[in-house]
Amino acid sequence: MTETIGKVFGDITVSADGYSAGLDQTEERPFGADGGDGTGSKLHAWMFDHADENRAEIDLILDAGAFIMGRNMFGPVRGEWDRPWNGWWGEDPPFHAPAFVLTHHARDPEQMKGGTTYHFVTDGIEAALAEARAAAGARDVAILGGATTLNQYLAAGLVDELRLHIAPFTLGAGTRVLAGVPPLQLEQVSSRAATAITHLTYRVR
Amino acid sequence: MTETIGKVFGDITVSADGYSAGLDQTEERPFGADGGDGTGSKLHAWMFDHADENRAEIDLILDAGAFIMGRNMFGPVRGEWDRPWNGWWGEDPPFHAPAFVLTHHARDPEQMKGGTTYHFVTDGIEAALAEARAAAGARDVAILGGATTLNQYLAAGLVDELRLHIAPFTLGAGTRVLAGVPPLQLEQVSSRAATAITHLTYRVR
Repeated sequence: MTETIGKVFGDITVSADGYSAGLDQTEERPFGADGGDGTGSKLHAWMFDHADENRAEIDLILDAGAFIMGRNMFGPVRGEWDRPWNGWWGEDPPFHAPAFVLTHHARDPEQMKGGTTYHFVTDGIEAALAEARAAAGARDVAILGGATTLNQYLAAGLVDELRLHIAPFTLGAGTRVLAGVPPLQLEQVSSRAATAITHLTYRVR
Repeated sequence: MTETIGKVFGDITVSADGYSAGLDQTEERPFGADGGDGTGSKLHAWMFDHADENRAEIDLILDAGAFIMGRNMFGPVRGEWDRPWNGWWGEDPPFHAPAFVLTHHARDPEQMKGGTTYHFVTDGIEAALAEARAAAGARDVAILGGATTLNQYLAAGLVDELRLHIAPFTLGAGTRVLAGVPPLQLEQVSSRAATAITHLTYRVR
């Protein structure tokens, strides 16, 4: 009897020069200086301004049974948890599943509305993945970012599938996907162009 | 009366992490350590092993009326021209048009078979572009690379269109396209997936 387990995928939006966020993240600007006007993420316009056209790619992310993210993706708080912060996604986050946040600072889980619970993992990427796998069961585990977190998982050989959404501008500086990752052999699974984004899916060999 | 002039396009093949060549270029290995077995360019397999499928993209490159390349794309000779070297492309290169090679070391033009003449330009990227435009007339000027050369043209605002061919592997090190280039606003003109390559075309605003 074969046990079905989900895959581990990384899913991240990058500029044409490979940055997933600009410099100078703040509470008002989760993606830093990403070329937008500061009212939203220019990188993620494909998700928010063109959601209908990109529904398949959005659903593939949200279908995961558990999520992993780095602390800087979770929020702008650095060091100790010195103020209330429950992510950028409001009281009813879109994950509807356990979401594991990598941090050096322990914190009790936060149960949100709609099935999302934030768990704070202080013992590294492999421990977070083990917890996420256990939570996801037969479903996939999504590594959402930021690039620093995803790069650690890629370098450790823990990612089965890499999805890049390439936005039509360059940033010139910021946090770069695939930086510091040893050479990877990829298999191009699919590539789809939408109005102002190109979706690339690779199997990592 | 409007004078028709061609556009200036950059056309380059990159790894999924944005490198157009690996480290350690040699005469036997024009693209350095690009992950191949040393007998050819792994980055450019789409051109050579799958030419039929990618005929449109190849023709778009070769339709240019003049070409520009950096000296390291032209060959492995560094410093003075201390040995005979007429490019990697044999006696009848595929360009069939003037090709301008940026170098710090003056050299007389080399007329090859089939209409290709190599001109060696020692007074910088703008001078090379002016010569290429004059040679191309109403046709396009192609900036072929390497990344260092293309990045200089992009940073100087001299490129109208950027074509990236994204190969399904990462290199982890090498010469990176768009590195050191100030933020650019791009317009996604087209995106096409072939078997093991994704072709992206951007208009540079």
